[in-house]
Amino acid sequence: MQVIRFNYGERGPVYGIVENDHVRPVVGDIFGNFLRLGSAVPLESIKLLAPVAPSKILAMALNYPSHVGERPAPTQPEIFYKPLSCLIGPDEPIVIPKGTERVDYEGELVVVIGKRTKDVSTEESLDYVFGYTCGNDVSARDWQRNDMQWWRAKGSDTFGPVGPWITTDLDPTTLQLKTRVNGEEKQSSPVSELIYGIPEMISFASRCVTLEPGDVIFTGTPGTTSPLAKGDVVEVEISGIGVLSNPVDEA
Amino acid sequence: MQVIRFNYGERGPVYGIVENDHVRPVVGDIFGNFLRLGSAVPLESIKLLAPVAPSKILAMALNYPSHVGERPAPTQPEIFYKPLSCLIGPDEPIVIPKGTERVDYEGELVVVIGKRTKDVSTEESLDYVFGYTCGNDVSARDWQRNDMQWWRAKGSDTFGPVGPWITTDLDPTTLQLKTRVNGEEKQSSPVSELIYGIPEMISFASRCVTLEPGDVIFTGTPGTTSPLAKGDVVEVEISGIGVLSNPVDEA
Repeated sequence: MQVIRFNYGERGPVYGIVENDHVRPVVGDIFGNFLRLGSAVPLESIKLLAPVAPSKILAMALNYPSHVGERPAPTQPEIFYKPLSCLIGPDEPIVIPKGTERVDYEGELVVVIGKRTKDVSTEESLDYVFGYTCGNDVSARDWQRNDMQWWRAKGSDTFGPVGPWITTDLDPTTLQLKTRVNGEEKQSSPVSELIYGIPEMISFASRCVTLEPGDVIFTGTPGTTSPLAKGDVVEVEISGIGVLSNPVDEA
Repeated sequence: MQVIRFNYGERGPVYGIVENDHVRPVVGDIFGNFLRLGSAVPLESIKLLAPVAPSKILAMALNYPSHVGERPAPTQPEIFYKPLSCLIGPDEPIVIPKGTERVDYEGELVVVIGKRTKDVSTEESLDYVFGYTCGNDVSARDWQRNDMQWWRAKGSDTFGPVGPWITTDLDPTTLQLKTRVNGEEKQSSPVSELIYGIPEMISFASRCVTLEPGDVIFTGTPGTTSPLAKGDVVEVEISGIGVLSNPVDEA
């Protein structure tokens, strides 16, 4: 199943389910009981929103050996928060804020939680996953280095592109992640190279923090990253999901 | 005006306005157009919830000289996020999670934003404040020291007590903050000793992050802090607002 969010006339933002080249709007709880409305809307006529409206966004630092490089490897999952206000959808611009000298892409697989959970075991944690989407953990490197915490380095407005849709019923260990800037491949990795896999990160986070339906986890970025500039277009492509594309602008 | 949140029968959580010893439930947008229902409920019959349901929680690190002590003073506002899942209301227990060796109180004034804003000047930023409440930025010191980011040190479930209500039309620079554990005074400071005052922190945060109605900012803690243990009761009292009291339990 492919799940999107879009503005459905006067109803405002609703979830929808993609069926071939059409979308069936959803009423009810996409994570629980819902109905597909009969009136299908052509997918190409829809402006896609971020495909989920979470109550919080978790993200993993240093979670691929190819990204850790010569730094010490983490000895536990290293987590941080991005604020809801940084979320944008497909084709919305990433805006480089004033005052930073370097803003990088970070292509990532993003997990969407489907059921409330606390203290879940690694063995059971995939039962609490709704699906997966593509994300870009946009990062201002100078702020990341110099501020005490990463609130604006990772959390400035527009620093959380996600989409184009949530794909359910995937095995995340089989996926391939690629990031392109202006069509040129910059990152390429099997998701199976994650240091802490999806079961481990969900279980570890849930020891301290209750996860709610719709909450998302950015799982970390592979390899190296480089700066974005106004006019660039960044694409994050994950096999079995699709392509998240965002242009870059500046404030 | 004193604003609370409470479960109003089948309506679930609603805002209410305290009038003497009664509460008038609110319908509509507490930050915009709303009506007070006619049916007043005795305040003493109500279990108070956290008085606000924000879209994000910002918090200030190292923002009183008495707390900075001999550490280098910050050269800019230093901000971090707490997740929504850590919020609790008055009298709800702070639960010390498994795996941490030291959890401290941090009594703080909390600002509640009233209007959406981005890039607001210090001069205009108080126009975007709805009111103020008491908060406790509960902190696991070992995790704060050893994790890369403070996601669980400051964000574990129950680590964000706020309340008892939001008081509007206050001058925050005149307020006195006190924290007591089991009745013994542990922290006492005029809020006017903040290093970065409320206009400065709102303006600085809003350069990068859009603030929404209901968003809250924990403004920092004064003086020193000490560990909590199961069975303790922590009170944060701010003149002109009231007392936020929470018992302490362990997982």
